[in-house]
Amino acid sequence: MSSAPLTPPPRQQERARSTRAAIIRAAAGVFEDHGYGNTSLAAVAAAAQVTKGALYFHFASKDALAVAVIEEQHAIASADGARVQALGRPALETMVLVCRGFTLQLIEHSVMRAGIRLTFEASAFGHDVRGPYLDWAVRFGELSRTAQQDGDLRPDLDADAFARVVVGSYTGVQMVSNILTGRADVIERLADLWTMLLPGVVGADRQERVPQLVALFRDGPSD
Amino acid sequence: MSSAPLTPPPRQQERARSTRAAIIRAAAGVFEDHGYGNTSLAAVAAAAQVTKGALYFHFASKDALAVAVIEEQHAIASADGARVQALGRPALETMVLVCRGFTLQLIEHSVMRAGIRLTFEASAFGHDVRGPYLDWAVRFGELSRTAQQDGDLRPDLDADAFARVVVGSYTGVQMVSNILTGRADVIERLADLWTMLLPGVVGADRQERVPQLVALFRDGPSD
Repeated sequence: MSSAPLTPPPRQQERARSTRAAIIRAAAGVFEDHGYGNTSLAAVAAAAQVTKGALYFHFASKDALAVAVIEEQHAIASADGARVQALGRPALETMVLVCRGFTLQLIEHSVMRAGIRLTFEASAFGHDVRGPYLDWAVRFGELSRTAQQDGDLRPDLDADAFARVVVGSYTGVQMVSNILTGRADVIERLADLWTMLLPGVVGADRQERVPQLVALFRDGPSD
Repeated sequence: MSSAPLTPPPRQQERARSTRAAIIRAAAGVFEDHGYGNTSLAAVAAAAQVTKGALYFHFASKDALAVAVIEEQHAIASADGARVQALGRPALETMVLVCRGFTLQLIEHSVMRAGIRLTFEASAFGHDVRGPYLDWAVRFGELSRTAQQDGDLRPDLDADAFARVVVGSYTGVQMVSNILTGRADVIERLADLWTMLLPGVVGADRQERVPQLVALFRDGPSD
């Protein structure tokens, strides 16, 4: 009689990972449409086409599922941020392109939209959701300081305050676009934000860069 | 035998109005803390110190109660907007002061905070919540065009786009302030927004007005 293996065989591990990923994707769709309070684990199991037993094997509670969606959202956003950083463009362009990438992810992935919705509903399930916002503010603070050293941002600008303004105003413009148009106009509304925000923060001798940066946000890098 | 009166006597009407208002206040507190999905009518009745029967007399469903809170939020915001308009100040100052008033109401009234939360959760109860955002965008669009005629805003600015940028960025900055500090720093974060947004939209010959407008937002009118 052979003893049970300490870890499941590779194929079983892979199947468990793919089931878990399918549950998170399905949960995102249900949370996005119905919000935290109106989502039931039964609805998620049905959407994921798994039994409630399989669902409970991966997630002990609705709370755990919501946290997994928020973490997945943050993982997608962070990976995309790293992709943009790796382009090695100047810091101010990097900020603009990180926002562009985040917006495209938001349009494409239900996990991103559900994660944002859950973040705003999160006091209902007592999860501390400050992390992603603080991360984003810290990274953009670093980029702002570099952009200031590059001479792209005004020398008298409070770089950390600029980072927080970008995080807050980006968040709101995309949320109001969601309410009014289901995010159909989100790129145009965010392009408006950059058009009006950049002249006040870009150095006096770099103002000609403003329309270039807005075009970079709207259309992406041409190279 | 006397017939029943067609309308309740004044004292009874007054009592009904005051009960209804007390229920809305209590509901706002519960919705603010727990969100739409996790709020029960029993919890609202307990918080309002009324029987469930009295609650149902005024509101047939949780949906009706949430809509009443959103409408009350909009009524408070509109009344405060009208108060500011009546000051008869230039249009750009009026925009800044309407935002200041809204922020102070947000700090003071649970109905305002609950209304905002419910608006973002509202797809869960199928209520069209575009109204307040469209109203706000339309009023600010009118003020922007007047501010442009006054020479306070750049002649080449898209006035309606500016109005939408203010609505969206204001919304997000206060929401992120709520997530990160429970709105303890909301006035400072919004003052940062005005500090960075105004230089890009104010006319070239009115730039000295920027710090005055930021101070007006932060401290209110001195007269």
